[in-house]
Amino acid sequence: MGSSHVTKHKSRIFFVSILLCAGVASAADKPQAFTRADLASANSLLEKALADTTAYQLVESLTTEVGPRPAGSPGDKAAIAWGLREMQRLGFSNVHTVPAVVPHWASMPSEFSVLAPWPQTMPVLALGGSVGTGSEGIEADAVMVKDLAALAALPAGAVKDRIVFFSNRMERTRDGSGYGKAVAVRATGPSAAGALGAVGVVIRSISTSSNRLPHTGALRYAADKPRIPALALSNPDADALERQFASNKPVRLRIRSSSRDLPPMESANVAGEIPGSDLAQEIVILGAHLDSWDPGVGAIDDGAGVGIVMGVAKAIKDLGLKPRRTIRVLLFANEEFGTTGSKAYVESLGSAAANHVLGLEADFGAGPVWRLASRVEAADLPAVDQIFRALAPLKLVRGNNEGAGGADLEGLAKLGMPILEPTLDGTLYFDTHHTANDTMSQVDPAALRQSVAAYAVSAWLGAQYSGSWQKVMTPKPPRR
Amino acid sequence: MGSSHVTKHKSRIFFVSILLCAGVASAADKPQAFTRADLASANSLLEKALADTTAYQLVESLTTEVGPRPAGSPGDKAAIAWGLREMQRLGFSNVHTVPAVVPHWASMPSEFSVLAPWPQTMPVLALGGSVGTGSEGIEADAVMVKDLAALAALPAGAVKDRIVFFSNRMERTRDGSGYGKAVAVRATGPSAAGALGAVGVVIRSISTSSNRLPHTGALRYAADKPRIPALALSNPDADALERQFASNKPVRLRIRSSSRDLPPMESANVAGEIPGSDLAQEIVILGAHLDSWDPGVGAIDDGAGVGIVMGVAKAIKDLGLKPRRTIRVLLFANEEFGTTGSKAYVESLGSAAANHVLGLEADFGAGPVWRLASRVEAADLPAVDQIFRALAPLKLVRGNNEGAGGADLEGLAKLGMPILEPTLDGTLYFDTHHTANDTMSQVDPAALRQSVAAYAVSAWLGAQYSGSWQKVMTPKPPRR
Repeated sequence: MGSSHVTKHKSRIFFVSILLCAGVASAADKPQAFTRADLASANSLLEKALADTTAYQLVESLTTEVGPRPAGSPGDKAAIAWGLREMQRLGFSNVHTVPAVVPHWASMPSEFSVLAPWPQTMPVLALGGSVGTGSEGIEADAVMVKDLAALAALPAGAVKDRIVFFSNRMERTRDGSGYGKAVAVRATGPSAAGALGAVGVVIRSISTSSNRLPHTGALRYAADKPRIPALALSNPDADALERQFASNKPVRLRIRSSSRDLPPMESANVAGEIPGSDLAQEIVILGAHLDSWDPGVGAIDDGAGVGIVMGVAKAIKDLGLKPRRTIRVLLFANEEFGTTGSKAYVESLGSAAANHVLGLEADFGAGPVWRLASRVEAADLPAVDQIFRALAPLKLVRGNNEGAGGADLEGLAKLGMPILEPTLDGTLYFDTHHTANDTMSQVDPAALRQSVAAYAVSAWLGAQYSGSWQKVMTPKPPRR
Repeated sequence: MGSSHVTKHKSRIFFVSILLCAGVASAADKPQAFTRADLASANSLLEKALADTTAYQLVESLTTEVGPRPAGSPGDKAAIAWGLREMQRLGFSNVHTVPAVVPHWASMPSEFSVLAPWPQTMPVLALGGSVGTGSEGIEADAVMVKDLAALAALPAGAVKDRIVFFSNRMERTRDGSGYGKAVAVRATGPSAAGALGAVGVVIRSISTSSNRLPHTGALRYAADKPRIPALALSNPDADALERQFASNKPVRLRIRSSSRDLPPMESANVAGEIPGSDLAQEIVILGAHLDSWDPGVGAIDDGAGVGIVMGVAKAIKDLGLKPRRTIRVLLFANEEFGTTGSKAYVESLGSAAANHVLGLEADFGAGPVWRLASRVEAADLPAVDQIFRALAPLKLVRGNNEGAGGADLEGLAKLGMPILEPTLDGTLYFDTHHTANDTMSQVDPAALRQSVAAYAVSAWLGAQYSGSWQKVMTPKPPRR
């Protein structure tokens, strides 16, 4: 039967086919993470985003029409209404709120004077959560220390009944690492000084700016230590105060603040979606936070993040793209006072938290994006590499696999949700973060568009991934 | 007689000598303006000043130990004491004060809120000299106009009972010309609006900054027009207010200020000298002003000028140089509210004003100097050219002969005193001028040293000039 000949011929073809397939496999090492169509869409998204002003207009609208919106304030409520309205206007699906209880701290005007050796009045901001001084204020001699280690090294009783001035200056870095190193005095300095008998704390703002605008930010009182008032001075004034200490004369200060805690309030996270198709039950989170500090109007912290994530979803919609997984834009309540918004969101999920297969967060200013980092299992690193290649026109740096995303994704990350981190450039971020200067003037429209482009490509390809995003269950994910 | 031969020979030599002399004369055209020794001293001064920290230390001391010092305030008195003490410490001669009566305006905290369409509170400063609003404040609908011309072009009654917002933005320039073009709304806008029935004025600060810090500065009420309160907004807030107007909804504002005039006070100019030698009765003035606004500490306006002129005299003393003419360092009272300090100084001189043969003023920030301009008669232009050549290491631009010096030399300039103007670079000056940001952080030590060098060479050679500085009696001095 001719069948044997046919069979032999077929097996030769089969053998050649196997070789060809093997060749393809060794070029990509694995199955392709993304289809050609998805990569082409990613490129269209990138080009569209680079020319799209949606994000900028959203930040303008949020800062102009709502303005400051600290947790629990009237601005907080107005921001929620704004988020719902704008998501509906942009045509997002399943627009809804997820309630959250938030702390409500009244940040009242505060006063700071040097009484001796040379009287001077300097602008201050109370640290977030600070108790007040009583209306009569607090007058005391002052002790200057660089940081917490220097405070701990003082002889016993050295700061008793004194005001402690922490003088350490934050270092400027692109990745924000200078903030991480410097911020401990703000968070725990007040309790550390209170535990040693101090009556007040003044810190050099956690700031890289030479502007005479103090930076606030949350403190964390220890439950078992005396709560003492804590204020921040701008860098120029901290320099001037150091010069007063350099006189070697006693430095006497007066502080006054009526800041105080009020009862917690109801607030809400605001969510809206681009619905998925075959993997609709899997959620890709695009997060930013809706609350802000109130000296400024929250343009870079985190109006820009809000603009970026909403701008991404709008660009995907505008191009008529249908993601495989659901892309959920999530505007978190109360990032600044302990991320109770994102915690409430995670609690609300129950077992549905497992459906959150990938997260991206924008909470580090208005860009540009300079790096793509991640926090994924080893099996998914090739997909991240391919997303990085899709971002080639933006000339990013390939970051490591220790990306954190941001504070509001911490809860989901602890549950194993992988993270993609288009890293926003933080070089100038700490010039204006948590100050009156957090206004639209700090938002560069081109940098913001570039950031939307980087997030759009990352989120879109994250939603289209042909593999399955693996839960990251190791405390430290694999290094690249 | 051999004499005829000798004569013939001599006359031939004589002819050659005349030719040689004519050659020399045509090279310099006039007698040399400065001796070689004076030029060598100028070069030593330049080198010394570029390495000398006296000026910086003086600005630090003035801003740290005195701080804000508006006319009539306690800081004004403290600054006079500081000036006397420091001039004595530096070894100046004939240290003395020249009394002056100064206005005393109380710059109290002021408030500004947008009530509609979107409630927002924005930081403001009252313009210098503004009346207050009464404790209840003023609430009114607002009209936005670009400038005085736009106000004048409105239909009759358009601003009656309204608050007028002047929105024009100042242009950044090196020579401060942008300020000259923009400042009219601050000076005369309040009276122009008051004359049309407006109840208040808000201006976009005369500012090149994107910081959320308003700039104050003096207004000038017309004697015969209603006096209405006037406040300044920072550029970011003026932008935000423009966005509120862009909504095409009525913009309603509320302003409040308790600023007010108090009775005039005694103040004083502070003077000290490097005595002259053969021309000691001729005075070269080195002027700056001691007063400041009070949102900042007056580091660039005009602590830097104070540091420059005192630093110049100190450098001349340190090198043991004995000027021909007397160099008088003059720290003027109250430049900011109508230059009553320098006016009182001129009045105190009587006929001795004629002895003021040359003036230099430093009141445009902390440098660097980029140009040498002048206001001298044609006969003295070659001397200015030679001073310019002595400044060659600083690579300056040769300016024209329409130099103004500064506001505090106007009175003497009107009496014909020639001016040398080492021009301070004003590119960044209007970012911080008249704001809380006028602190030491805005003073670049190297630029300040360079400025001292430029002023030192100019003042020294001005004092050594072998000619006589001619009075400039023409309204417009000769062009170069």
